[in-house]
Amino acid sequence: MTLDRNSLQALDRADPLAGFRAEFDIPEDLIYLDGNSLGVMPAAVPAQLRRTVQHWRNDLVGAWNSANWISLPNRIGSRIARLIGARDDEVICTDSTSVNLFKLAAAALRMQPGRKVILTERGNFPTDVYILEGLSELTGLKDHLRVVPREQVLDSIDESVAVLVLTHVHYKTAEMYDMAAVTRAAHDKGVLVVWDLSHSTGAVEVDLNGCDADFAVGCGYKYLNGGPGAPAFLFAAKRHHQRATQPLSGWLGHRNPFAFGDSYQPSPGVARFLCGAQPVLAMMPLDCGLEIFERVSMRQVRAKSLRMRAILLDLLQRRCTRYGFEFEPDVGAANRGSHLSIMHPESYAICQALIRRRVIGDFRAPDALRFGLTPLYLRHVDLWDAVEHLVQVMEQGEWDTESARVRHAVT
Amino acid sequence: MTLDRNSLQALDRADPLAGFRAEFDIPEDLIYLDGNSLGVMPAAVPAQLRRTVQHWRNDLVGAWNSANWISLPNRIGSRIARLIGARDDEVICTDSTSVNLFKLAAAALRMQPGRKVILTERGNFPTDVYILEGLSELTGLKDHLRVVPREQVLDSIDESVAVLVLTHVHYKTAEMYDMAAVTRAAHDKGVLVVWDLSHSTGAVEVDLNGCDADFAVGCGYKYLNGGPGAPAFLFAAKRHHQRATQPLSGWLGHRNPFAFGDSYQPSPGVARFLCGAQPVLAMMPLDCGLEIFERVSMRQVRAKSLRMRAILLDLLQRRCTRYGFEFEPDVGAANRGSHLSIMHPESYAICQALIRRRVIGDFRAPDALRFGLTPLYLRHVDLWDAVEHLVQVMEQGEWDTESARVRHAVT
Repeated sequence: MTLDRNSLQALDRADPLAGFRAEFDIPEDLIYLDGNSLGVMPAAVPAQLRRTVQHWRNDLVGAWNSANWISLPNRIGSRIARLIGARDDEVICTDSTSVNLFKLAAAALRMQPGRKVILTERGNFPTDVYILEGLSELTGLKDHLRVVPREQVLDSIDESVAVLVLTHVHYKTAEMYDMAAVTRAAHDKGVLVVWDLSHSTGAVEVDLNGCDADFAVGCGYKYLNGGPGAPAFLFAAKRHHQRATQPLSGWLGHRNPFAFGDSYQPSPGVARFLCGAQPVLAMMPLDCGLEIFERVSMRQVRAKSLRMRAILLDLLQRRCTRYGFEFEPDVGAANRGSHLSIMHPESYAICQALIRRRVIGDFRAPDALRFGLTPLYLRHVDLWDAVEHLVQVMEQGEWDTESARVRHAVT
Repeated sequence: MTLDRNSLQALDRADPLAGFRAEFDIPEDLIYLDGNSLGVMPAAVPAQLRRTVQHWRNDLVGAWNSANWISLPNRIGSRIARLIGARDDEVICTDSTSVNLFKLAAAALRMQPGRKVILTERGNFPTDVYILEGLSELTGLKDHLRVVPREQVLDSIDESVAVLVLTHVHYKTAEMYDMAAVTRAAHDKGVLVVWDLSHSTGAVEVDLNGCDADFAVGCGYKYLNGGPGAPAFLFAAKRHHQRATQPLSGWLGHRNPFAFGDSYQPSPGVARFLCGAQPVLAMMPLDCGLEIFERVSMRQVRAKSLRMRAILLDLLQRRCTRYGFEFEPDVGAANRGSHLSIMHPESYAICQALIRRRVIGDFRAPDALRFGLTPLYLRHVDLWDAVEHLVQVMEQGEWDTESARVRHAVT
C-alpha cells in the first residue's frame, strides 16, 4: 500500500467504525492523539448531566432510589465487564485506579498466608509502584516488595511471591503482556495476579475469564471517555468473592449498609470492594461513553487500532527518522497496545509546538512523545495530517526548549 | 415566645440569612429536612457544569491546566478551611470520607511507634468503625481495636492508645463532643485524634486549630451542598505534615507526579494525602456550594441552627408526645449539632408517610426519625408546617408498616 493522504481518506470511507465519530463532540480543528490520557466527550453528556442535575434538584436524597444512583457502580461495572471478558457481577465502578489497586493487592496478599512478596515491574506506571510501596510498608513487608526490570519479571515468579501486579499495556511503550501466559505461569507457582488495564480497556481485546485472571483494575477517563477524573473500576473473579476481603471496608461494601450495624460484614458479591459514596455526577459521563461501546465489537476496535498504529509508525519512520527520533523495537504488532511513543531529547518542546498547531499528543518523561490511537473517533487521515505537522515543526525549528517550562497535564 | 405559624413567619422576615435561600434551586412544594444527608442544589450548578463540560470538550487534556482542574483539591480545600478553623494549606478535597479516614488513621498510627490501640466509640457512624476494623486487621492489630460506649470514651484514653477516632457530631443523636477538651485529654496521654466532621462542617462552628487538633475528615454532600457523592475532605495540622505519611500513596500525592519516578516521595504539604485523579465534574458543584459559604459567617449559621432546633424540639414535644415519640435527653443545646432525631417504633413507616406529603426527613435504624436543619435555606415556618404534617400523619394513621419495605436511601 502506498501511503498518501488520498489512500488514508479511502480507508476512512471504507471504515466500518467511521460512523462512531459522530457520537462524540470533538472540535473540528483538532487532531486529538491523547485519548489514552483523557478521552473526548460523548455527545450525550450535556443532556445526561442536565437530567442528573434535575434528579438532584427535584428528588434530592430520594434520587438515590428514584434515579437508581445507588446501583450505578454495579450497572456501569456490568457495561465494562463485556469489554474485558468478565461476568456482569465481577466488575464494579468506584474510586480511583490507585485506590482500587490498593484494595485488590491487599485482598490478594491476605489470601496468601505465609507468602510475603509483592512483585512488580520497574518502570510500571508510577502510581502502581507507589501504591505497592504504601501497602507493603503498612503491612510490615517493606523489605519484601520486589520491583524488577521487565525482562526479569517472569523469572522472578516463585513460591515466595504472594501477588504479582502488572500493567497489561505499558503506559509509555505500549508493550503488552501475554495475559494468559503470565497468569498461567503465576498460578503454577501459586501466585495471584492483579492486572492494571488502564491502557487496555476499550483499546485492545481483553479476556479476563478466558485467561483465568484473578483481579484487575482500570481507568474510566481514557479509552472509555468518562470525563476528567471519572471513577475507575475493578474486577474480582467470582471464585474469589468469598475469600477476598479488602481493608477499605467502608459502609457501602457492607452486606447491609442501612442496618447501621457496629460490625463489618462484607457484601457477598463484588460490592464488597465498594467503600464510601460514589460521585454520581462524575459517573454519568462514563455511562454515556460505555453506552457507545455497547454497539461496538472490541474485535473491530482492535483491528482498526492495529491498522492505524502500523500506518503511523510507517509514516513516522519514513518521514521523521532524519530529525533524530528513535523508534520502538519491533516486538510484533500483536504485542503492543493502542498508543505509540517515539523518543527525542527535545520531546517536551516538540510536544508543545504540536499543541500550538492543534495536534495534541503528550510528553512522558524523560524523552517520549506519545500518541494515542482511539479507533472510535480517530480518522486515518488524521495520522497523515499529524505527521505532516510534525515534519513542519521539525523543518521550521518551531520547538523552543526555553518556552517548554510549564508542567504538563495529567496522564 | 408563643410559637405559632405567624410568629415563625415573623422570624423569617427578621432572619439575616433569609436571602440565602435564593442561592439554591429548591422545589417550592417541598419541606426539606434532609440536607444533613444530601444538601439541595446551589442555583449556580447547572451553569458551572455547562462551563466545565465546555472546558472538557474544547481543551480536553489541556484543561487540567487551562481550567486549573489540577489545583481543585487545594482550592476547594482552602474554601473548606475557613469553615473549620484551619489554614488554607491544611485542607484538601479528595476521595470519600471513608477513604480519607483510612489514610489519616493509618498515618497517625504510624506516628505512634510502640502504641497499638485504636480507640473509637460504639455507635459511631458505621463506616468509621468499619474502616478502623479494616485498618487494624491489615496491620495485624485486630485485637487492639477498642470500641467502647460513648460514656467510657474519655476514661479509655491511656498511654496504650495510638489514635482516637471520634465523630464530632453524632449522626443520629446530634450529640457533640467538646473538641477542645477531648483533644486536650488525648494529648495529655500522647494520643493523636482524628475527628470526623461529616455532621459538623457548615452546620456548627468548628475551630480545629483553636483546639490544637491533629487530623480531621468530613463530607462534601451534606451541609456543604456539593451534590450526590461529592468528594470529601481531610485536614492535617501543619505541624504534622512532615511526619504524617499515608499508605494510599498514589501518584498525585507525590512530590513531583510528572517526573514519573520509580520511588514514592510524598509532597511536602497536605497534597501528600492525595492518591489518584479526582472526579472534576463532581467537584464543581461542591465549589458552587462553598462559594455561597464564603459570604456567610458560621456564627450566624450556628445561631439560626440553634434557634431552629429549639423551636422544632418544642413543637414536637408539645404536639407529638401523645403519639408515643421519645425525645432526646437534655444535654444542653450547645452540646448538639444541627439535626434532631425523635424515636418511635414505627419511625420508618412514619418517615415514608411524611415523604408522601413532601416533607423529607430520614429514618435511621432502628427507630430514629431524623430531621436536618440547614440554616442557609430552611425557613422557620417550614418547621411549623413539617410538624403540622406529622400531626396529621399520626392523627389519620397514614403510616403503613406493610408498605414500608423499600430500603431507605444513602445517608
